[in-house]
Amino acid sequence: MIDTPRLVDQYCHGVLRTELGLGTFEAHLGPAAVLPASGTTFFDTQTGFAVRRWCPPLLGLEAHCPPARYLARRRELGVAETGRRLLRGAGVGTYLVDTGLPGDLTGPAELAAAGRGRAHEIVRLEPLAEQVADTSGTVDAFLANLTEAVQDAAVRSVAFSSAAAARCGLAAGAEAPGRADVRRATGRWLADRPAGGPLDSPVLLRHLLWIAVGAGRPLQLHTGDRDPGALAGFAAATSGLGADLVLLHGSPHHRTAARLAGAFPHVYADLGAALAHTGARAADVLAEVLELAPFGKLLYSSGARALPELHVVAASAFRAALGRVLGSWVLDGAWSRTDAQRVASMIAADNATRVYRLG
Amino acid sequence: MIDTPRLVDQYCHGVLRTELGLGTFEAHLGPAAVLPASGTTFFDTQTGFAVRRWCPPLLGLEAHCPPARYLARRRELGVAETGRRLLRGAGVGTYLVDTGLPGDLTGPAELAAAGRGRAHEIVRLEPLAEQVADTSGTVDAFLANLTEAVQDAAVRSVAFSSAAAARCGLAAGAEAPGRADVRRATGRWLADRPAGGPLDSPVLLRHLLWIAVGAGRPLQLHTGDRDPGALAGFAAATSGLGADLVLLHGSPHHRTAARLAGAFPHVYADLGAALAHTGARAADVLAEVLELAPFGKLLYSSGARALPELHVVAASAFRAALGRVLGSWVLDGAWSRTDAQRVASMIAADNATRVYRLG
Amino acid sequence: MIDTPRLVDQYCHGVLRTELGLGTFEAHLGPAAVLPASGTTFFDTQTGFAVRRWCPPLLGLEAHCPPARYLARRRELGVAETGRRLLRGAGVGTYLVDTGLPGDLTGPAELAAAGRGRAHEIVRLEPLAEQVADTSGTVDAFLANLTEAVQDAAVRSVAFSSAAAARCGLAAGAEAPGRADVRRATGRWLADRPAGGPLDSPVLLRHLLWIAVGAGRPLQLHTGDRDPGALAGFAAATSGLGADLVLLHGSPHHRTAARLAGAFPHVYADLGAALAHTGARAADVLAEVLELAPFGKLLYSSGARALPELHVVAASAFRAALGRVLGSWVLDGAWSRTDAQRVASMIAADNATRVYRLG
Repeated sequence: MIDTPRLVDQYCHGVLRTELGLGTFEAHLGPAAVLPASGTTFFDTQTGFAVRRWCPPLLGLEAHCPPARYLARRRELGVAETGRRLLRGAGVGTYLVDTGLPGDLTGPAELAAAGRGRAHEIVRLEPLAEQVADTSGTVDAFLANLTEAVQDAAVRSVAFSSAAAARCGLAAGAEAPGRADVRRATGRWLADRPAGGPLDSPVLLRHLLWIAVGAGRPLQLHTGDRDPGALAGFAAATSGLGADLVLLHGSPHHRTAARLAGAFPHVYADLGAALAHTGARAADVLAEVLELAPFGKLLYSSGARALPELHVVAASAFRAALGRVLGSWVLDGAWSRTDAQRVASMIAADNATRVYRLG
Repeated sequence: MIDTPRLVDQYCHGVLRTELGLGTFEAHLGPAAVLPASGTTFFDTQTGFAVRRWCPPLLGLEAHCPPARYLARRRELGVAETGRRLLRGAGVGTYLVDTGLPGDLTGPAELAAAGRGRAHEIVRLEPLAEQVADTSGTVDAFLANLTEAVQDAAVRSVAFSSAAAARCGLAAGAEAPGRADVRRATGRWLADRPAGGPLDSPVLLRHLLWIAVGAGRPLQLHTGDRDPGALAGFAAATSGLGADLVLLHGSPHHRTAARLAGAFPHVYADLGAALAHTGARAADVLAEVLELAPFGKLLYSSGARALPELHVVAASAFRAALGRVLGSWVLDGAWSRTDAQRVASMIAADNATRVYRLG
Repeated sequence: MIDTPRLVDQYCHGVLRTELGLGTFEAHLGPAAVLPASGTTFFDTQTGFAVRRWCPPLLGLEAHCPPARYLARRRELGVAETGRRLLRGAGVGTYLVDTGLPGDLTGPAELAAAGRGRAHEIVRLEPLAEQVADTSGTVDAFLANLTEAVQDAAVRSVAFSSAAAARCGLAAGAEAPGRADVRRATGRWLADRPAGGPLDSPVLLRHLLWIAVGAGRPLQLHTGDRDPGALAGFAAATSGLGADLVLLHGSPHHRTAARLAGAFPHVYADLGAALAHTGARAADVLAEVLELAPFGKLLYSSGARALPELHVVAASAFRAALGRVLGSWVLDGAWSRTDAQRVASMIAADNATRVYRLG
């Protein structure tokens, strides 16, 4: 009833190049680095059930077939052919790919080829800063190289993303830290850092966010499990500076993120983290996001990582949810059909095309 | 299926007396002082769609007609006739009007005349205190005059409202501040205050809340974007003192407010802020409020300001939501029809009539 | 459409042995120690309406009959016969009974006999510690006796529960307090304690939680009105130690509890507090819990106390909610019928049987 155009997936990762057994496949259905409790399995989650709903038919099986049968078919087709069938079934036209995660994941070009779409890179700030630290001998060199690296990345990418900085860097304050504080924090971090050590200095993480804001690209902030309301201070401090903020937040904080998108002109809310893991509930979660966010401020994503199945689940759940929610409002007379169709296109692709200048 | 009586709007403002263009009209559809992002419009929000659903028919147009056509019709009728048609279409019998906002808004009597209802005043505490400061030369005079002004206001009004005090005054504690602290804070504020400057002393704001509690009138607290759970301390401290507290809270904090209304005999929850801006989702939000709040503790309001359209949207969304939610529970056998009808009347008018002694 | 097996109620209390009048009955429909506001009644709540929906038919009356008529019938049958009819109508096979509340409530054996089920004891930690203090003369004796009492209780019971410790004991930190701190806090508490005084030392409450974790039994934590997100630190600190944590949390924090159950292998989420008080909304609340929690991590309970009616309401609301939510997902194709049936059994009984080793 509501047509959804080919999607712009404004935040995802590549897929694994290796074959997966039942256990390694299952591990990617839950939160990163979390094991299922004894006597339970991550197949018994909304994500697990959604994979079994949407993916088997794309590989020629019946929906909801047992996991072991699905995995056997996956191995029969091989990881590359499975990836192509699933990604092409997802109906995504453009992928914005965060390349900053470890693991043997396909890059933007390889993902785009498998999915018959286009791809652009999102540069994750923390690994970028850690690479700069690996090759900078002094505080001065590090700080100069960091600014240059961020500016270079702004040229080749469509956005920045940040996880640690958004979570830890803003606890003590939202404003750009002073030059002296940044130099002191850098000196301490470089001196104490083991080889390859993560960026964990709150002052330096905050400095990094502010360099990115200065580079003018949209900045995607992983709020993780926290209430994104904690980002209101940073949103207020960066208002009017020209860089958009995109909140990558999960349920159950999607309503707070939607409210922030309504309260600040430069704040946008991502839908992926909230919809991709809630399966049969995705329509209800989408409806909640649509309460307070202006419709021009919402962006589809899959947030998918490692499994092409997660690209399928996110896209399928989103399309079904959009059709159900907007369709019911049209039937009810609350929205006109024309408006519903227009809003569907905005959230599915047009808003992202405008914000990331993909046109 | 569920009849709703003429509403008591327990919290609203007057409407503008001036003609509005497309841009000035649109500005009132979003949060105060927020501009739409470039490439977006506040017409593309639940509020914007709700205005286009409910208001054009009251002016002889088709629902969901384009904004420009609606605004043209509005100008054709003139601001006064538009206001009368819209307000009379909203079905409100009694308006409780917060007169403490700046701007060329109609007062209680003028609003009541346009809407063919009755009106009572709500006195906002902060501007009252600022007016007292404008005319008091010393700390002693200010404090004596402030108490007198609040007591005078309690005679002519049905309730007090507060925004800054509820947000900033209770951060450091909920108890009434001591006399010495109040005198010190007053001295500092009066000394530093530019002409007409806002009341921003946390101690003095808290003192102001406690004077109002002493005056015995219901006290309406704007919790804004914050979790109203932060008001639990103030609710505990004021329990049993005889003044009711009414939480004017918005989505997504409506469930927390509902819980507080169940936990404290003197705490009530307003429905306006949560329902008036969620459009097609109003029924779902109402249903969430009805989970934990005793039905005798919920109060309808519009929270409308500046546009008569917002009075229409709030009343229409509320009536439709009440009919849908309670009607479905009756069909389901969960509630009896008699109970549903009784609860509808309580929330629409009877609770407010009792709490504000309007009978 | 979805069959629910006989329930394991993983958290409840006994019922009153005394006859109740309208006022004393009503008092048990609201939060403990809260009175209804003047002009309102706790019968006008979801709990009140749910009692009137589900209980009168079990006593031979029409659903939704007036409270006075229901109470008259209750007196006619007598408290014992009323209790038997209601409890047997609830369809509970196993009761896990927290015996740590004051009041003339039936114990596990008496509750099981009335309901024709089995019962096991849950030991509440705070009263246990207070009893130990009543009979221990010195700090050393108290601490030794406390450890022994907890270990003894672990033998005769299936779980521990805690309210004050979960609320106040973890504010300053989640880790086990050091020996010296515990001795100092014990000395101070024993010295200041009036006869029978409650355990209110945060350090000692935290110590108590850690002894219970060491005893290896599941530990049920009442998070009360607070966001269970505050327990994330304790969950992280106790991960891998072998004791499960069960969050007894109420609406509106059920989504946060569900998320924690997905984030930590040893964390489980209770459904009782969220479903038993939301009446006609129970299906919607259940659906929200099912968004993020793995299905193997959810446990039914009634949380019922004092009134056998609350056992009926919880069980009836749960069964109806489960049937409606899972049934709609099956109709929609989102879940297979086999999976839905399996998840229903897991939440209703199987998960609790596994976690509490009731098999």
